[in-house]
Amino acid sequence: MKSESLFVGLDFGTESVRAVVCDRSGRTVATAESEYAHGQIVPGTETASKLFRVELPDRSALQHPGDWLRAASVACRAAVCGAGLDPARVVGLGVDFTSCTVLPCTTHGLPLCLSSLDGALSKLAPHPHAWPKLWKHHGAADQARRLTEAAADLGEPWLERYGGSVGLEWFFPKILEVIEADPEVADAAEVWIEAGDWFVWHLVGSPGAGGQIDSASIPRSTCQAGYKAQWSPKTGFPAEDYLGHVHPALGAVRKKKLPGRFVPPGRLAGTLSSAMAEKLGLHPGVAVSAAIIDAHAGVPGAGVAQPGTLVMVLGTSACHMLLSEKGHDIPGIAGVVQDGILPGLYAYETGQAAVGDSFEFVRVLTGQDSFEKLEAAAERIDAGSDGIICMDWFAGCRTPLMDSSVSGGFIGLRLSHTPGHFYRAAMEGAAFGLRWIVETLRTGGGGAWGGVPVERFIATGGIARRSPLFLRIVASALGERVYAHQAPHGPALGAAILGALAAGADRGGFADPVSAVRSMAGETSVLPAPVAVDPVPDWVPVYERMYHVYRRMAQATARPESASRAAGAIGRREAPAR
Amino acid sequence: MKSESLFVGLDFGTESVRAVVCDRSGRTVATAESEYAHGQIVPGTETASKLFRVELPDRSALQHPGDWLRAASVACRAAVCGAGLDPARVVGLGVDFTSCTVLPCTTHGLPLCLSSLDGALSKLAPHPHAWPKLWKHHGAADQARRLTEAAADLGEPWLERYGGSVGLEWFFPKILEVIEADPEVADAAEVWIEAGDWFVWHLVGSPGAGGQIDSASIPRSTCQAGYKAQWSPKTGFPAEDYLGHVHPALGAVRKKKLPGRFVPPGRLAGTLSSAMAEKLGLHPGVAVSAAIIDAHAGVPGAGVAQPGTLVMVLGTSACHMLLSEKGHDIPGIAGVVQDGILPGLYAYETGQAAVGDSFEFVRVLTGQDSFEKLEAAAERIDAGSDGIICMDWFAGCRTPLMDSSVSGGFIGLRLSHTPGHFYRAAMEGAAFGLRWIVETLRTGGGGAWGGVPVERFIATGGIARRSPLFLRIVASALGERVYAHQAPHGPALGAAILGALAAGADRGGFADPVSAVRSMAGETSVLPAPVAVDPVPDWVPVYERMYHVYRRMAQATARPESASRAAGAIGRREAPAR
Repeated sequence: MKSESLFVGLDFGTESVRAVVCDRSGRTVATAESEYAHGQIVPGTETASKLFRVELPDRSALQHPGDWLRAASVACRAAVCGAGLDPARVVGLGVDFTSCTVLPCTTHGLPLCLSSLDGALSKLAPHPHAWPKLWKHHGAADQARRLTEAAADLGEPWLERYGGSVGLEWFFPKILEVIEADPEVADAAEVWIEAGDWFVWHLVGSPGAGGQIDSASIPRSTCQAGYKAQWSPKTGFPAEDYLGHVHPALGAVRKKKLPGRFVPPGRLAGTLSSAMAEKLGLHPGVAVSAAIIDAHAGVPGAGVAQPGTLVMVLGTSACHMLLSEKGHDIPGIAGVVQDGILPGLYAYETGQAAVGDSFEFVRVLTGQDSFEKLEAAAERIDAGSDGIICMDWFAGCRTPLMDSSVSGGFIGLRLSHTPGHFYRAAMEGAAFGLRWIVETLRTGGGGAWGGVPVERFIATGGIARRSPLFLRIVASALGERVYAHQAPHGPALGAAILGALAAGADRGGFADPVSAVRSMAGETSVLPAPVAVDPVPDWVPVYERMYHVYRRMAQATARPESASRAAGAIGRREAPAR
Repeated sequence: MKSESLFVGLDFGTESVRAVVCDRSGRTVATAESEYAHGQIVPGTETASKLFRVELPDRSALQHPGDWLRAASVACRAAVCGAGLDPARVVGLGVDFTSCTVLPCTTHGLPLCLSSLDGALSKLAPHPHAWPKLWKHHGAADQARRLTEAAADLGEPWLERYGGSVGLEWFFPKILEVIEADPEVADAAEVWIEAGDWFVWHLVGSPGAGGQIDSASIPRSTCQAGYKAQWSPKTGFPAEDYLGHVHPALGAVRKKKLPGRFVPPGRLAGTLSSAMAEKLGLHPGVAVSAAIIDAHAGVPGAGVAQPGTLVMVLGTSACHMLLSEKGHDIPGIAGVVQDGILPGLYAYETGQAAVGDSFEFVRVLTGQDSFEKLEAAAERIDAGSDGIICMDWFAGCRTPLMDSSVSGGFIGLRLSHTPGHFYRAAMEGAAFGLRWIVETLRTGGGGAWGGVPVERFIATGGIARRSPLFLRIVASALGERVYAHQAPHGPALGAAILGALAAGADRGGFADPVSAVRSMAGETSVLPAPVAVDPVPDWVPVYERMYHVYRRMAQATARPESASRAAGAIGRREAPAR
């Protein structure tokens, strides 16, 4: 019976996976979370020193693919069994995943670092480059630069769609990094794949005669491919000629190592295999949606299925997304993808490289145990942080500078400033960064196509729930009302909605995105209405003034050739001294 | 007998007074320190809330004059008696004091906040403005600005000698602040005086019939008057017309409330009175030198009595001094004073408003208990702090911007930066600020007179002793050898040398500055030779590059009208939002 249908969303984050089980009205009937045993494998961690004889290069961030399987199994079983639910009621499953998290594997889906899916290490395991590179892995800056330059030189048609730049966190720069840094691993790779697609491939892959899945069944998400690998429905991945021009082996990857078909999120990738059903504690045959990037799942999760609402997913980084009926190229916006979030619409993605991470940076810098004291201190400080202005580019600037090499700063410092001042300033800097993105969308960034309407703001993600102060600062910096969506697990709910869409009306799901989203996360759902957060009247003029200083700083950083030499140096990272 | 002569230096700092007893060879035969019972009386302290019904204004910093007398008595007695010395051997006494620390008092030298010198409070004591304003009191910024503007408008002849600006820590701005903020106190004031002069006045004042000293005997130091009150031997204090133009009551202060005579440091201010000899545990009749500013006492204390050596006193703030045979006006240098440090020479004073305070700012910000861990962490970080550039103006910029409203900053920040990076960057920023001062002296700051030679560098003060890393960074940023003077109490030794000069050759002291300094702190003294600290070859080119970025930032801050608007905002403090 339809009313009994349940949908599972699996939300793969940076540290853990969360499983939520929802019904048609958006009610969360069960949820569970499981941490990755190996966490983030970054330089200086015990895991890194145990796994590798060599020291991990700076700015590396890896993950253990066995963790994904184990943690998903634990979380999904804990949710379904723990709540005493009948697994037979689950008819749809969606997966959202960090991106671009990318790994090399065999044609049978075995990651090169493993000798079996239960986590045993392979003989390539001592090679860091055989491991999945987490989204935040920043080892491919030089590769991204060269890929950008070659695209400009060769006049690649997709370049403008991505604001003129290839990001250092994207798919091809990471692959090229492996090709150049560890040819043995690059040679051994048979398939390069996004982690979300890899997981869905395993969910729906039908084992062949040898009991193994194969690469013919790979369902690649149009979301991950569109945002992170310059793919579009019309032109596919970037041309082999272009990639081969940058490195012959990269051209060969394009030709031979990217098998599969492209499926939009919310469309059926396949049905759950017996093997994976057993692992997850579900029944075989559940409809599985193509994967989606975690942040992007926040759009349906926030009850948004139509154009004009900016969905602000506020986490360690921030992703601000906007659906649209048309896809313009807007300088500074990387990028706009057809079917990128929901079938039938274009979706703009914009981002801030560090939001929660900036707050965490201040917390760690100031030696505080928790955010509570900092937030309370910041509450007591007037808008403007007593003169501090923060440039929030502690991990570079995604939108609109698209420059990972710019850096952050605090200026206006006096001896009287306290950790609370720094914390409030970091929040204000993040809010100014967001306002700049909104203005870029609305004005079209000076491009030929003009802007797109942004009429409503809805915030979701961990920071939106945890920091009412930050939302007041954001609303005041924008000078507009902001809504805080009340779903505690927006991306997971979004993933479950995509599972319900993949199931379709016939199997107890929904026929179209608007009705699915309205029923499970919107007006007719059981979720509490979004909370309105209005600008604080006294703060608005303060932020209006400060924002213009922030923008002048940004201008100086972004266009050193046109600003004074003095200004050109600001915020731009000096080469480290070696 | 000459060989048995001893000299006492009393070094009045911000938190305590130190007494040192030295012989003719510079050997410290005894020393003792005593803290001020009330410490710094600043907003938010328990002392402030006990003393005053009103809340102390922001940026206030007061001291208790009873503390000076009690602590000096304790320290001097502890040194002389504690070491079992015969007080009869002490023939000279010098006093150095923070400056401009200024107080209102009666014609008999009683501070308005006290009803007796033993510390009982007066009926004006509930008025914060009746108390001595400590050097770092920053309540007179607006007054300093108006005094500067009026001096420019009226073409006051001394303005150029002070680099075109009246400092907010100086004598007349602080007096004007009291006149405007608390007329009752201003009316009650009979004498305005520097704290160092006040103390020496009490040391040498001969009580009249009523047993009280009077204002005829006030010995004002040419050092304090020259550096902090725009005084010169030729023209005296600024004209009554000018001061009266800014505020009639300030003109009246100039006319009636600044009695006394002017005495250079190292010249006899008078001999020790019986009353004060009793308090200090010395014999009456000891030769007492005119007071000197604490930092300036570091020049003789570092063994310097001749032109060409920059004496860098590195403490919470830093003061860099240079003796010269001629006194040029150099834009950005405030100021150059005849007989300012030693009789017969001009002395240039330059300064950095926060050095140790910047390091302390980072220590407190990062929640560290001690400097040791931070210093060790900074040692492990490469020159350049992995891209951070620090502007060291956390308390404004003294030399050469002479602008207390500019503010500090850290730019080039990335999430990977740690407290150690901030700490090292703060050190590097302070070193760049110092290099800028040296270049200003050498080039003459673009002024008509040209520069003055700086041929040698000698560092002294607490930071010079405690942070070998900072000295290496300074040497590398300058690209020149720096010497670290080994006298543990440079200013106190300098004060004792001035006492020996005041005593003169006849009374067991010295006839002239060069022989006094050479014997007690220089080549023929018993002090260990200064330690040479050479530039680290690998750091020099890194700092060369970074210094130019620092200077471009400074340029943008200093001359907003000529830099781009973007650059103009950098480092300049926004008005706090109220």
